[in-house]
Amino acid sequence: MYIGVDLGGTSIKAGIVDKSGIIRIEKEIPTCAERSPVEITEDIGNVILGLIKEYGISKRDIKAIGIGIPGLANQTNGNVIFCVNLNWYDVPLRDMLEKRINIPIFIDNDATLAGLAEYEIGALQGVSSGVLITLGTGIGGGVIINGEVYRGANGVASEIGHMIVGENYYDCNCGKNGCLETFSSATAIIRYTSKLLQESQEESIIMERINKNFDKLDAKTIFQCANEGDEISIRAVNRFAKYLGTGIVNIINTIDPAVIALGGGVSRAGEVLLNLVIKEVEKTKHFKKLPVGKVVLAKLGNKAGIIGAAMLGKHNIK
Amino acid sequence: MYIGVDLGGTSIKAGIVDKSGIIRIEKEIPTCAERSPVEITEDIGNVILGLIKEYGISKRDIKAIGIGIPGLANQTNGNVIFCVNLNWYDVPLRDMLEKRINIPIFIDNDATLAGLAEYEIGALQGVSSGVLITLGTGIGGGVIINGEVYRGANGVASEIGHMIVGENYYDCNCGKNGCLETFSSATAIIRYTSKLLQESQEESIIMERINKNFDKLDAKTIFQCANEGDEISIRAVNRFAKYLGTGIVNIINTIDPAVIALGGGVSRAGEVLLNLVIKEVEKTKHFKKLPVGKVVLAKLGNKAGIIGAAMLGKHNIK
Repeated sequence: MYIGVDLGGTSIKAGIVDKSGIIRIEKEIPTCAERSPVEITEDIGNVILGLIKEYGISKRDIKAIGIGIPGLANQTNGNVIFCVNLNWYDVPLRDMLEKRINIPIFIDNDATLAGLAEYEIGALQGVSSGVLITLGTGIGGGVIINGEVYRGANGVASEIGHMIVGENYYDCNCGKNGCLETFSSATAIIRYTSKLLQESQEESIIMERINKNFDKLDAKTIFQCANEGDEISIRAVNRFAKYLGTGIVNIINTIDPAVIALGGGVSRAGEVLLNLVIKEVEKTKHFKKLPVGKVVLAKLGNKAGIIGAAMLGKHNIK
Repeated sequence: MYIGVDLGGTSIKAGIVDKSGIIRIEKEIPTCAERSPVEITEDIGNVILGLIKEYGISKRDIKAIGIGIPGLANQTNGNVIFCVNLNWYDVPLRDMLEKRINIPIFIDNDATLAGLAEYEIGALQGVSSGVLITLGTGIGGGVIINGEVYRGANGVASEIGHMIVGENYYDCNCGKNGCLETFSSATAIIRYTSKLLQESQEESIIMERINKNFDKLDAKTIFQCANEGDEISIRAVNRFAKYLGTGIVNIINTIDPAVIALGGGVSRAGEVLLNLVIKEVEKTKHFKKLPVGKVVLAKLGNKAGIIGAAMLGKHNIK
């Protein structure tokens, strides 16, 4: 058995996962991200020990613990290099936890681990090469090459969200202009739709749905209104899909993966989004007559984090 | 010994290359691209047999022949899928040649093979992962991952020139807008400089150098004039470097290679270009405090084609 922990800005999710990637038991507690790394790490330890106790197995039956973090980790020493939204910099997460738990611990980026989960039992299963693109508040990526998680020479690969794909009317948080996540994340489509609603003279059913309160606007509502034929929503969704298609073709033009899977919250828009993106990829791909990687929906939803983290442990300790 | 053939739109270059990648003898003849594939292939055969005779070795001493083509090849059946500038479509190049020559023949894209050459004895030697970007009339790419040439799941990887990196004032030949090669190829810098010269009221020393004949404008002249402080040339060179930096950071954000080498004709601009590009990469990279792959100049110049083609043979037949 393995334990997978998905440390997010909002919640800490953890589960005991068997070697075939099935979650046997899971728990979720709030992160309370404003707390110190010491306090949060203590909670991670509590969740892990709680799971072991509740499931009624011995610590010795847990071969490894994997932790997915919303940031960058140093694979060698198990330190968190940084997690911006937790305000963590150079936190020796593995050392802090191993002292207390005494089970081998491995740490990696959460999108990378979601990619690993999809590779083990999801949409990327059995592919030689594949990319998971997580469409959430931002955009993350997990790259599989030759059947292995690919982290790159300096551990900074798969930052798909900060690939430049055009020019945008506002800059990315990272300081650049044109990053994919300023076009095709939940945040991006909300921002663009708000702009259209505020600038346009057109009627839109969105205004009813959100009671004219822009704080209530979310990606789900925009996709729903687009399905119902709302012009402004359709424009926003099409723009989202167009640039996502460009990002995917840029990936194809670099590494030509066998499968590209769309995950993250916005991928719940499902087939409607998928079909738009596939159309964009077919339109934008370089060799019009040759096949390129299949674009599909990810399969594991928000369980990918726990499963991928557990599989990281499995990959390191068999 | 191996034979490498570099089939280009202008000339056919070929050489006998030893297993360490040293060219022992070489020949070059014009392609006369308007001829049929049968006629050109006959000339390729003549060059190969001529080299063997001239070098005074037996055909049995040549273990394999590699051919680099300016297009896409099918690795399995040895057919050229297409070479646009030769007007070749579905040409069974390997079969046509093997009948006459009776030595194992392997065919691949020329930029991919230039990448392999740089990996074997050039700027990418010994790296775990690396990318060669060839800056010529267009932009090509060769990707090395885990010490192997990487062709992707459908054989369409490393089309770096058609990665979208922004919005441009004209469309690419491929029909898209914003392709890297519309910003950072020889063609692109010539076109942009012409535009500046025609639109601007500024004096420029370029006009003297080309005798006001825009047909004489080339990338070399533009880089030279920039070195001499010519404002218009400096603007053109900076734009070239800016977008090349963006393209490189897009590659880093996907696969984070250990080394990125700049080859092709325009890379002869040397350190001046290199330093500008490194500055752009440092400015544009996502994790400001973390190291990324080294950007360097390629080492093999226009010999990379012959050497890489020969090394393709070596990789397939040891």
